[in-house]
Amino acid sequence: MTPANPDAEPDWDTDRLDVLLASIWRSFEAGCRNRTSAFRNVVVATTGTDGRPNARIVVLRAVDGETGLIEFHTDARSAKVGELTRSGAVELLFWDPVSSVQIRVSGLATLHEPGSEEAARALAPIPDAGRVKYRTDPAPGTVIAAPDMLDQADAGSVVERFTLVRVHAQAIDFLRLVDGSQRRAVFDRRAGLMAAAWISP
Amino acid sequence: MTPANPDAEPDWDTDRLDVLLASIWRSFEAGCRNRTSAFRNVVVATTGTDGRPNARIVVLRAVDGETGLIEFHTDARSAKVGELTRSGAVELLFWDPVSSVQIRVSGLATLHEPGSEEAARALAPIPDAGRVKYRTDPAPGTVIAAPDMLDQADAGSVVERFTLVRVHAQAIDFLRLVDGSQRRAVFDRRAGLMAAAWISP
Repeated sequence: MTPANPDAEPDWDTDRLDVLLASIWRSFEAGCRNRTSAFRNVVVATTGTDGRPNARIVVLRAVDGETGLIEFHTDARSAKVGELTRSGAVELLFWDPVSSVQIRVSGLATLHEPGSEEAARALAPIPDAGRVKYRTDPAPGTVIAAPDMLDQADAGSVVERFTLVRVHAQAIDFLRLVDGSQRRAVFDRRAGLMAAAWISP
Repeated sequence: MTPANPDAEPDWDTDRLDVLLASIWRSFEAGCRNRTSAFRNVVVATTGTDGRPNARIVVLRAVDGETGLIEFHTDARSAKVGELTRSGAVELLFWDPVSSVQIRVSGLATLHEPGSEEAARALAPIPDAGRVKYRTDPAPGTVIAAPDMLDQADAGSVVERFTLVRVHAQAIDFLRLVDGSQRRAVFDRRAGLMAAAWISP
C-alpha cells in the first residue's frame, strides 16, 4: 500500500486501486480530525427489530485503515443500540457533495457497553460540552409536552450511558459520478487478503 | 396547516408542530428545485436481500407534502431495484450539516417500471445530459478491467432502464442538535390523521 501522508489531498481520479484505498482512509482520518470535513458526519444504516431499514447521522470519532476499524459514540438508551445488539450488520455511508464522492462501508458492529474498559477509554478525553447530550432526560424517543421539557441528569449518569461502537469494515464501495469521470471500485477484506476491483457505476 | 410560502425560510426553532412540518416539506421542495440545497441529495436506506442494511445517495426529484410523496429515479439494473421489489420498506435520510438538521422519513416505496406511464412522464423532461448514466454498459456492479472501460448503449436503452421510485411517507422524525437548542419531533400519518409529538432527542 502507498505510504499514508496524512496531509496529502485524496486522489479520487487515480487509476490505481491501492492509491484510491489509501485516499479513502486518509479522508476518513481527516473527518475525525476536522470539524468542517464532509466526512465529519457519517450515516449509520441498520436493520430495525421489525426488519425495516433505519438510518441516522453520527459523528465520526476514530478510524484505523490497517485494521479496518471505524468508531462512533452513542447513548445506551438509543434505538440503534437495541438494533445493533440484535444484529451487528451495519452500513456506513460517507458523502461529500462538493467532490461527489460516495463511500459505502459494509461491516459488523461491536458494542462496548457503558463502563467497559473500551468505553471508559473513549469517554476520558471528551470535554463537558461533549457530554451534555448523555445527561438528557427523559430517554431518547420519550414523548414530551414541549420541545424544551428536558432535564439534565447528574454528571455521573454519563458513564452509565456512553457507548462505544466499533465497526469492523468488511467491504468498501467507492463511487464518484462527475461530468467526464464516472468511476466505482469495490474493496473486500473478508477473504483475508484485500480483494479490489473496478466495477461499472 | 400553515399555508406554504415556497420562498419562506424554514423555521426550525418554532414551538408549533404544524409550522415545523410545513418547514420540513418546504425544505424538501427547495431540494428539488435548487442544485445547491443540502436536501438536493437524500440517503435511501433499504434492507438487502440478505437482510443486511444498505444505504446510498440519490437525487431528490419531486415531493408533495399533501399526499406525502417523495420521488427519485434509478436504473432498473441497480441493486436497490431488486431490494425494493422484494420489500418496499425504505427510510430516507435528509441531512444539512450547516443547520444541523436531520430528517428521517420512513415509508413504503412503489416502483414504476421502465416503460410504464408514470416512468415515461418522469423521463420526458430530462435532458440528454441527465440520461447519459442510464446508457452505461455493462450493468452496474459488473467487474471491469479499468475504471473507464465503459460503453454507451444507444439512446433507446434509456427508456428500458429508467425507473421511477415513489416513496409514500408514513412517519417523519425531525432532529436538530445545536448549542442551546436540542429538539426532536415525530409526525405519523399511518393512523389516517396526522399525529405529531415532541420527543426527547
